[in-house]
Amino acid sequence: MLDARTAKWPEVKEYIEKGCVAILAFGAQEEHGPHCPLSTDTIMAAGLARRLAEKLDALLLPPIPYGETWNNSRFPGTITISFSTAKALIMDIAISLKKTGLKALIIVNGHFGNRAPVELACQILRDDHNFPTLHLDYPGMARLAAEICESKPAGMGFYHADELETSIVLALEPTAVCMERAVAEYPDFPPTLGSQPIYLDEFNHSGVFGDPTLASAEKGERLLKGLTVAALQVITPFLDSIK
Amino acid sequence: MLDARTAKWPEVKEYIEKGCVAILAFGAQEEHGPHCPLSTDTIMAAGLARRLAEKLDALLLPPIPYGETWNNSRFPGTITISFSTAKALIMDIAISLKKTGLKALIIVNGHFGNRAPVELACQILRDDHNFPTLHLDYPGMARLAAEICESKPAGMGFYHADELETSIVLALEPTAVCMERAVAEYPDFPPTLGSQPIYLDEFNHSGVFGDPTLASAEKGERLLKGLTVAALQVITPFLDSIK
Amino acid sequence: MLDARTAKWPEVKEYIEKGCVAILAFGAQEEHGPHCPLSTDTIMAAGLARRLAEKLDALLLPPIPYGETWNNSRFPGTITISFSTAKALIMDIAISLKKTGLKALIIVNGHFGNRAPVELACQILRDDHNFPTLHLDYPGMARLAAEICESKPAGMGFYHADELETSIVLALEPTAVCMERAVAEYPDFPPTLGSQPIYLDEFNHSGVFGDPTLASAEKGERLLKGLTVAALQVITPFLDSIK
Amino acid sequence: MLDARTAKWPEVKEYIEKGCVAILAFGAQEEHGPHCPLSTDTIMAAGLARRLAEKLDALLLPPIPYGETWNNSRFPGTITISFSTAKALIMDIAISLKKTGLKALIIVNGHFGNRAPVELACQILRDDHNFPTLHLDYPGMARLAAEICESKPAGMGFYHADELETSIVLALEPTAVCMERAVAEYPDFPPTLGSQPIYLDEFNHSGVFGDPTLASAEKGERLLKGLTVAALQVITPFLDSIK
Amino acid sequence: MLDARTAKWPEVKEYIEKGCVAILAFGAQEEHGPHCPLSTDTIMAAGLARRLAEKLDALLLPPIPYGETWNNSRFPGTITISFSTAKALIMDIAISLKKTGLKALIIVNGHFGNRAPVELACQILRDDHNFPTLHLDYPGMARLAAEICESKPAGMGFYHADELETSIVLALEPTAVCMERAVAEYPDFPPTLGSQPIYLDEFNHSGVFGDPTLASAEKGERLLKGLTVAALQVITPFLDSIK
Amino acid sequence: MLDARTAKWPEVKEYIEKGCVAILAFGAQEEHGPHCPLSTDTIMAAGLARRLAEKLDALLLPPIPYGETWNNSRFPGTITISFSTAKALIMDIAISLKKTGLKALIIVNGHFGNRAPVELACQILRDDHNFPTLHLDYPGMARLAAEICESKPAGMGFYHADELETSIVLALEPTAVCMERAVAEYPDFPPTLGSQPIYLDEFNHSGVFGDPTLASAEKGERLLKGLTVAALQVITPFLDSIK
Repeated sequence: MLDARTAKWPEVKEYIEKGCVAILAFGAQEEHGPHCPLSTDTIMAAGLARRLAEKLDALLLPPIPYGETWNNSRFPGTITISFSTAKALIMDIAISLKKTGLKALIIVNGHFGNRAPVELACQILRDDHNFPTLHLDYPGMARLAAEICESKPAGMGFYHADELETSIVLALEPTAVCMERAVAEYPDFPPTLGSQPIYLDEFNHSGVFGDPTLASAEKGERLLKGLTVAALQVITPFLDSIK
Repeated sequence: MLDARTAKWPEVKEYIEKGCVAILAFGAQEEHGPHCPLSTDTIMAAGLARRLAEKLDALLLPPIPYGETWNNSRFPGTITISFSTAKALIMDIAISLKKTGLKALIIVNGHFGNRAPVELACQILRDDHNFPTLHLDYPGMARLAAEICESKPAGMGFYHADELETSIVLALEPTAVCMERAVAEYPDFPPTLGSQPIYLDEFNHSGVFGDPTLASAEKGERLLKGLTVAALQVITPFLDSIK
Repeated sequence: MLDARTAKWPEVKEYIEKGCVAILAFGAQEEHGPHCPLSTDTIMAAGLARRLAEKLDALLLPPIPYGETWNNSRFPGTITISFSTAKALIMDIAISLKKTGLKALIIVNGHFGNRAPVELACQILRDDHNFPTLHLDYPGMARLAAEICESKPAGMGFYHADELETSIVLALEPTAVCMERAVAEYPDFPPTLGSQPIYLDEFNHSGVFGDPTLASAEKGERLLKGLTVAALQVITPFLDSIK
Repeated sequence: MLDARTAKWPEVKEYIEKGCVAILAFGAQEEHGPHCPLSTDTIMAAGLARRLAEKLDALLLPPIPYGETWNNSRFPGTITISFSTAKALIMDIAISLKKTGLKALIIVNGHFGNRAPVELACQILRDDHNFPTLHLDYPGMARLAAEICESKPAGMGFYHADELETSIVLALEPTAVCMERAVAEYPDFPPTLGSQPIYLDEFNHSGVFGDPTLASAEKGERLLKGLTVAALQVITPFLDSIK
Repeated sequence: MLDARTAKWPEVKEYIEKGCVAILAFGAQEEHGPHCPLSTDTIMAAGLARRLAEKLDALLLPPIPYGETWNNSRFPGTITISFSTAKALIMDIAISLKKTGLKALIIVNGHFGNRAPVELACQILRDDHNFPTLHLDYPGMARLAAEICESKPAGMGFYHADELETSIVLALEPTAVCMERAVAEYPDFPPTLGSQPIYLDEFNHSGVFGDPTLASAEKGERLLKGLTVAALQVITPFLDSIK
Repeated sequence: MLDARTAKWPEVKEYIEKGCVAILAFGAQEEHGPHCPLSTDTIMAAGLARRLAEKLDALLLPPIPYGETWNNSRFPGTITISFSTAKALIMDIAISLKKTGLKALIIVNGHFGNRAPVELACQILRDDHNFPTLHLDYPGMARLAAEICESKPAGMGFYHADELETSIVLALEPTAVCMERAVAEYPDFPPTLGSQPIYLDEFNHSGVFGDPTLASAEKGERLLKGLTVAALQVITPFLDSIK
């Protein structure tokens, strides 16, 4: 594994010549309740990306710390970038990687709002730049949450500042979590959620979706291991296909 | 000072209510010779931004780790984003900050290529969004280099992977520097440099401009102190003007 | 209900003065197997939109017959528009409606690829144009499919040219279906589906996902009734909120 | 002729293999007086497109029901799309057609405002995509109006909701016309018309330009026959040139 | 009249305070046969704009010397700008004029290809910037050509490097014309002209449309006088409307 | 030298066949004090471009008379175009030149605000269009000012409406200068200049930076000669490199 943040360029040159792929975490700066850090999504995606880079002996890129977080952008501390900026970042980084010989990019996406711009970027990178990309959105997460977490999820696909996310941050950067402020909140979802542009603060007060109070670093470690395994099950056929 | 990376949103809310400004380092992922890390510009800008945030009791945002590095983009490990993406990032972040009540943004720019897109973004933020911004490009750097560094600069405005930059990284993150690989290079500048789009690898081989071998953490610390003082001399009248 | 396709402008003026909302079906021109028409998604969305317009005494707009169908765009007859064009269509239509006094727009989306551009348009219409929109993606469809259809779905969220879709087109425009050519196909989904930009013809041969041979107009009618009920459960609180 | 709305994809595949061209009507949703439907331009363009497709054994695409109707956009029921969206639709559809092997696209434009964006799209399709297009704006219409219609035209190039247009809609979709509401209006044209952006409702009250009261389906049929002949005189050399 | 090219800013300030309008010629750099200069359209539009500025005591802006000349862009010496650049120039100039207090802009367009982008810009300037504009495309030209010129026009609306244009350039800048090289050419127009993107060099060899050999400065002067009168008949009601 | 403004297209054809380059002055419409014309930057750049074209036997293009002058855009008479329009103009002109066989473009930039958009355009022209460009921003100016002018410069890199610029305009177009209105102004530069978007009228009253009262046509002639020599020292190696 080569960490591109601290690597020197001749080291990267060697890595590229060996045929490595690059791994990029795409995080967000977004409220995660009164107990989890604003960079929770970045910490989680970067943590998983690092483990994958180790397994794959890949080039680990610095994570993108800002993402598309429109629906949380009225919470102080959330900073959103637009759909088009998120898409452009992926496009630019991939095109630049291709220019110096990288053969593929694996994106570890840590935030739901980034998903659509990443998918669009990857389509264009395939069609117009012939550059292979894979984007992972925590494969296996719902299954792992059900297996490992004790609290029930908030529903509607939300795993946000809950037992799952809090556990993973506890495993990766425990000093960034303040468990004594952790509170549970199971919001009443408005009936038009998903069908209307709704800011989450219209029905969620703490920024928590679920119950983080049962979180632990040990669960986080198990979750990370599970995510790593699930991710590799997608990465392996991808790497085979670009050989 | 509040570090927005690990802060929780209610803490940011309080800080905004007190009337704080935000500070954002804009770095780059760019070759810096065989001895300095690819994230040298991010490390330096983030280091200066943190010191300024401490002095100003400001909200310190996660640094942007990718910048516009077109002219170095043929060196492996350099990853450039386009002018428009760099501009869009500043626009989006500033607009999002304004939405939750921040009163101003100070950008600590660590990379030359970011300068023009940042300036354009700041003009639009003034005219169309009435949002005050200040962007700092290491004020006082040439004077401080002359005072503190022993080697002569490469010229043409380049302070890149040289005694100055290497010293600052040694002061901020010494493990990211590999001094034994440091070499001096004083390139012959092509006569059309600045008048033509030229990739730096067309006349620079190591990625170094100048002589980093005399660098030291102690010089880096003095440089950082000097940059902090010089930056505050620009920030103070800015803050006065937006009161 | 007023059908804006054949209405005359003074009739629309009266309807707007009564405070009506507009309903817009967003379809697609996309392969739907050897038995279903290329405009299946338009027929379905327009059929549901008409029923909703009748219930709501709304202004029924002409359906958009082209959508974002990138992943099927290698099948002859599929015609895709880009993400940005799909988004622009919704933006333009909504802004134009607002100009003449419409108070809200309900979008009945008939195609998965339209979902992300519609969501983005609706966010911008809220923030920058203060115009309420609701977009429906067949609420209740998975539940209704399980209740009414006999064949098992292809999985991965695909209801495409299968028993469900074929039944609905049989109910709405039976002459457009050629049941004698209907075939079942349960594709082997590639492990990277959803994580990579994949054209569906890379693993799907007929264009069918599931088993359409059990389709009937009667099932289609039941499905449409169920979709209408489910849609109204989302529309009612939306209309209440904009009163 | 193959109607792509109800065709199945294997049929289109066969048609393409035979070397067919595609025909696309580009309409508009625009006021056409108190007696003609808002989709008059779509009905007319689609009607002519269908007759041409029959003559040419071409692939008939679903008509685009929205066009650039800025100058009528203050009449309720008019819905305009922007210049750039109109251009993008033509670009996207043509590029998508090319991807699956179509050799050319004939656009039957039914609305004046679409003309400039269509022309621009066609230039780019030639230069950047090497894709042949032909766009028809009712060739021969002024001559046919003079030959067949009894009322005098309103002037300034307007044939809008008048004897000509009403007759054609009567021939194509008589139930969409309400002749008892037809009124004549010969507006006083402002001296700056054509030199200033002017909304038509600033000087036109009914939405009619001319006298529709003399319209008949029989005249409409004669007009359509004449337009078909005139169109084929342009299409034939086009098809010869792309053989 | 104040010529903004050589005026000093305090003079413009005074003029604006008196309530003047601005006049802008929009030319082109385009082939005009073997005898007329490439800047023919700029010379003509600037000449007419100057006469109008004198009559109206207006602020005369420097002419734009490049226009949208796609269809002539394969002739050496023709330099085209894109539709979007042409539109952006008008938008930017008008918005900038408004910023310093100008109350309206009159555009004297000298080139057909500029017409559509100018019209689009003027619509947006009305709707989004509330800034009045008038664009003139040589009003009365066809009538004046018939009255004053002896040769017949080439047809299809072309007055290009012919008796009319050559006469006007002879009146305005006689040294720029080389009459001994003037030749007549009456091209056979392709049947698809106007319906297809066609480069003029596909059917026109000299770059002349018509017969310039009968041109004279005296005719040019009469044409200019006639154009001035016709233009003022449009300008006067425009100025009345913005009082 | 061939002046493309008055040249006829067959002359340009010959020049291109000989392998000439094109030279383009990029000026601005911007306040230059109470004594210098608003088109000072255009006059100067066009004057230098003409001398260079003569030396190089090049194709001299009509100068662009509008530039990016945001920071002076609150002075009446200043007319700014946006960054993106300035960039698009250079892109369009260069691409059009390439289409008819020009082998390179030399841009003589007369205005600071144009510099960044020109640089960006030139990068893209190299990477995406393989078209060589050189852009000159008055090489040697500071040295020549120090050698030839008697007054001290205003500082901060400003040579604006001062002895240097006034002298050059006096040499090129003396009737455009009104020396009796010339005044000196040495503004107090705000401490945040260069770090904030500041309009120059916030600290500059006359529009002059320095002392123009000592200007003379003779000095202007010496400055022009010096600039020509310095420019050729950059142009020569450029031309060698594209042979």
